[in-house]
Amino acid sequence: MKASRFFVSTLKEAPADAEVVSHRLMTRAGMIKKLGAGIYTYMPMGLRVIRKVEAIVREEMERAGAVELTMPVVQPAELWQETGRFDKMGPELMRIQDRHERDYVVQPTSEEVVTDIARQEIKSYKQLPKNFYQIQTKFRDERRPRFGLMRGREFIMKDAYSFDRDVSSAKASYQVMAKAYRAIFDRFGLRYRAVAADSGAIGGDLSEEFQVIAATGEDAIVYCPDSDYAANMEKAEALAPQATRPASGKDAVKTPTPGKSTCEDVSELLGVPLSTTVKSLVLATEEVDDQGTVKKVQIWLLLVRGDHDMNEVKVGKLPGFEQGFRFATVPEIEAHFGSKPGYLGPLGLKLPVKVVADRDVAVMADWICGANEPDFHITGVNWGRDLPEPDLVADIRNVVAGDASPDGKGVLAIERGIEVGHVFYLGTKYSKAMAATFLDEGGKSQPMEMGCYGIGITRLPAAAIEQNHDERGIIWPDAIAPFTVVVCPIGMDRSAEVKAAAEKLYDELLAAGVDVILDDRGERPGVMFAEWELIGVPHRVVLSDRGLKEGTVEYQHRRDTAATKVAVQEVAGLVRGRLAA
Amino acid sequence: MKASRFFVSTLKEAPADAEVVSHRLMTRAGMIKKLGAGIYTYMPMGLRVIRKVEAIVREEMERAGAVELTMPVVQPAELWQETGRFDKMGPELMRIQDRHERDYVVQPTSEEVVTDIARQEIKSYKQLPKNFYQIQTKFRDERRPRFGLMRGREFIMKDAYSFDRDVSSAKASYQVMAKAYRAIFDRFGLRYRAVAADSGAIGGDLSEEFQVIAATGEDAIVYCPDSDYAANMEKAEALAPQATRPASGKDAVKTPTPGKSTCEDVSELLGVPLSTTVKSLVLATEEVDDQGTVKKVQIWLLLVRGDHDMNEVKVGKLPGFEQGFRFATVPEIEAHFGSKPGYLGPLGLKLPVKVVADRDVAVMADWICGANEPDFHITGVNWGRDLPEPDLVADIRNVVAGDASPDGKGVLAIERGIEVGHVFYLGTKYSKAMAATFLDEGGKSQPMEMGCYGIGITRLPAAAIEQNHDERGIIWPDAIAPFTVVVCPIGMDRSAEVKAAAEKLYDELLAAGVDVILDDRGERPGVMFAEWELIGVPHRVVLSDRGLKEGTVEYQHRRDTAATKVAVQEVAGLVRGRLAA
Repeated sequence: MKASRFFVSTLKEAPADAEVVSHRLMTRAGMIKKLGAGIYTYMPMGLRVIRKVEAIVREEMERAGAVELTMPVVQPAELWQETGRFDKMGPELMRIQDRHERDYVVQPTSEEVVTDIARQEIKSYKQLPKNFYQIQTKFRDERRPRFGLMRGREFIMKDAYSFDRDVSSAKASYQVMAKAYRAIFDRFGLRYRAVAADSGAIGGDLSEEFQVIAATGEDAIVYCPDSDYAANMEKAEALAPQATRPASGKDAVKTPTPGKSTCEDVSELLGVPLSTTVKSLVLATEEVDDQGTVKKVQIWLLLVRGDHDMNEVKVGKLPGFEQGFRFATVPEIEAHFGSKPGYLGPLGLKLPVKVVADRDVAVMADWICGANEPDFHITGVNWGRDLPEPDLVADIRNVVAGDASPDGKGVLAIERGIEVGHVFYLGTKYSKAMAATFLDEGGKSQPMEMGCYGIGITRLPAAAIEQNHDERGIIWPDAIAPFTVVVCPIGMDRSAEVKAAAEKLYDELLAAGVDVILDDRGERPGVMFAEWELIGVPHRVVLSDRGLKEGTVEYQHRRDTAATKVAVQEVAGLVRGRLAA
Repeated sequence: MKASRFFVSTLKEAPADAEVVSHRLMTRAGMIKKLGAGIYTYMPMGLRVIRKVEAIVREEMERAGAVELTMPVVQPAELWQETGRFDKMGPELMRIQDRHERDYVVQPTSEEVVTDIARQEIKSYKQLPKNFYQIQTKFRDERRPRFGLMRGREFIMKDAYSFDRDVSSAKASYQVMAKAYRAIFDRFGLRYRAVAADSGAIGGDLSEEFQVIAATGEDAIVYCPDSDYAANMEKAEALAPQATRPASGKDAVKTPTPGKSTCEDVSELLGVPLSTTVKSLVLATEEVDDQGTVKKVQIWLLLVRGDHDMNEVKVGKLPGFEQGFRFATVPEIEAHFGSKPGYLGPLGLKLPVKVVADRDVAVMADWICGANEPDFHITGVNWGRDLPEPDLVADIRNVVAGDASPDGKGVLAIERGIEVGHVFYLGTKYSKAMAATFLDEGGKSQPMEMGCYGIGITRLPAAAIEQNHDERGIIWPDAIAPFTVVVCPIGMDRSAEVKAAAEKLYDELLAAGVDVILDDRGERPGVMFAEWELIGVPHRVVLSDRGLKEGTVEYQHRRDTAATKVAVQEVAGLVRGRLAA
């Protein structure tokens, strides 16, 4: 490509609403242009990146045996009503009506449509397994779209759906996709982790997120540097402590803690480690009848160590919490504890509550909790002596760095990541709801076992930038750079030698299949270099009259601090060598 | 591709709602699957065709210097309000609201968004000309979607938009696109015509439609077999007749024509040629004040020969018709003519009307028209003698086959076509409405001159089928076939020789870059052949044990009536030769 025929348009300043570096740099580099909240035009420079991401995904999907189709953006509501999602999904599902006032949705995903296709097309076990995928525009009406392509409303997603005859075949299909995802993410040239994720009500361990490592990532990733253990924070298990509960050494004492309503404040006031305090969280579960009327409310007190955080996903799996839970209201808390929040604890309750202790809390002695009286805590609390043993002991906390790895091979570390892919075993959730069945070898009708597999095509470039940038701009991995090489001639309009050498090099690289752009716009060197550094093209060759007189050009990788002089006849080979590396 | 890894799914029967052959065959061949009215999933077999169409379009757009971007499907209403289209467009514009009750549209085209991009990005004449294009999902809420992909609601369109500094540069950009379109349609391998189209209020001749020739086409295409003249029916000029008006030979006679209210009926009753009758059409134009109140209604009588049809586009350009027109109401007709419709004519009017005669009517003598009295016509009517000369003589009719070609090089013929592309000079309609200006060389702000250029990506395969099919199914041109070659081994599961030879041929063609599919599903020959004939793969090679014993395989083009025996070692070369041809 010659720059004069392309559209290079960079900005000095990022828009005021750009909070994260990828949003700032993609806008400044002319890759995206905001049209509305969370809605962007993919400008020519950005679209090239997206197309390269798509091409890699498509190749690996095909290699893994998935078959591409394209499902509609605008989908009739009927199918979404079959699974109940038309009503159940919140306002992020964009609902629309046509001229005849029939209901439609703008697709956020396509489980319903693909299941409808499968139930029409797949009649026999002989047609299974099958995996359909699409790379298509999606829409989610986020309440607060932000961060550019990181959390847009309109976006491009690759979504694949596998159909299998039984669980073991579905698991094999899942593993084929998980392997394809590793191949895809390897090819992107990004640092990433495949982390075990919670698979919700379906259970099992067949859910993995593909997280691009970035300090700015929204998600906490838990991993073990000494093994291949990796999970997201929701999923990562906090192992039961090795130590047993020590004997009590102190008396329970009601201690004034005026205005100190957090564990941090109390530990600071009393001069004791935060890990000797216990945090009280009050939750409520409800029994609801068929009419949706609440028949009974159960109040729960959950206890985690002051230096730990409660993990809501783990709580949601406790016995009694399967139908969901909520935080208790202040009136509920006052009725049961006789105190406002901030000074709560398991001692001296007004009404019975069920007590769940985290495994680390269950082995504590001489601990500190709220006294159920404003401005007072109790120190030296001990299980069995001062209060009954908890009703339930369970893992209900987030892991922290330094916890033992669940695989027993070291201790856990935590880093930040951006979720860009997800592979998920669905089971028969959709196939049962929509009667997507096939005849097995015995002629019996069976629901298909399904899996779904997503990659955020337009999110990936943003994640790549969060991971790879410096103060001058973006630094693309070769595989997804808008151009791999930029040839920058200085004074091309003045010097016939520079022009000839630049065009020769351009032609040579083009002929070798290199995605090269020749900057023939006649910009001044400073402006030209700054633009390409902002855009982040990884390899640059600069040609000048002075250099050519001594037979050299300058090569510089975007990460290099200085250029390297290279003999003019060797530079194409050098560049090609760097690309192959 | 191996068929076992792909998704081949054909149907014996077409759906009941499939009225046209392309809809029937695309559904039966498993290329599309209906999701809702005018909304289709592009199934794997169909998507391959669409992708090939896209690739050809993309290559030629790039070659012509257009730059690809992708504009959002969901677009904020604000821009559409700037041009007034949000209110002016009918219900085919899909309007939606987000969770905050802000208005959006699902894009039917993107003039507003691209003009908004241009006004932000283009500041100087130095940045012009520019041409942006996208290949993207569109939606039009058709009142009556039908004919499968021919008139769907959701579809894929390539839309390009050129921006220029002045009219002559805009015309040059237009010609570049028109040339690219010819290259694209040549590559599709379809019979097509580029026909001059009406350019509406903008005037000039910078509007061409690209019509795929098909007997089932909705549009009438006018062309001259002896020259390169071609236009659509709206646009094609009916030349002024060479002959001058003959002298009158008959008296005007009021003649009973009971119940004969059409020219056809009258000519049959009287035993005279239809071309001696004159059709009366009563139109009305309105003068409207700023408040939208109608201040004055003008009634017009338009006269065309009985064997001709009025052309509404031509009428819309007559002086006095620029603000639009409508057909007169029955009360208006009765007030002016003293008769109900069916027996109208220009003689003996009750109130004055303005008379417009088609050029062919103006040179008639001794003609027949309604008597403005039910069940009566007048024969032997002559201009000047029986009524004044018309107020206006103009070309207001559709041409008919045999009319002189406007280029003076022969006579016109008419055939049917399907519009799949359109190139159009827009002028400053959008740039003025949206203040998309640039600074010219003198530093003066000027509106950009625009053009727009569309190709119906998903309509093209349907048009291709309307043109190329037989009773067995589709016959794809090589360039856009889902697969170019199918290798059909008979008894692959039983014969190691057949399997080895089929796989060798498959590998050989694949290595030569041929888009080949190997049918390794083990279907019976009859079923297999019927499926591939329905799907329309243009080249087929059949391998069987019997043939291989004598060293031959069978080659058959989809249009051939019989297969040709070819030496097994020569077939790859033969196929490649046929593809290159």
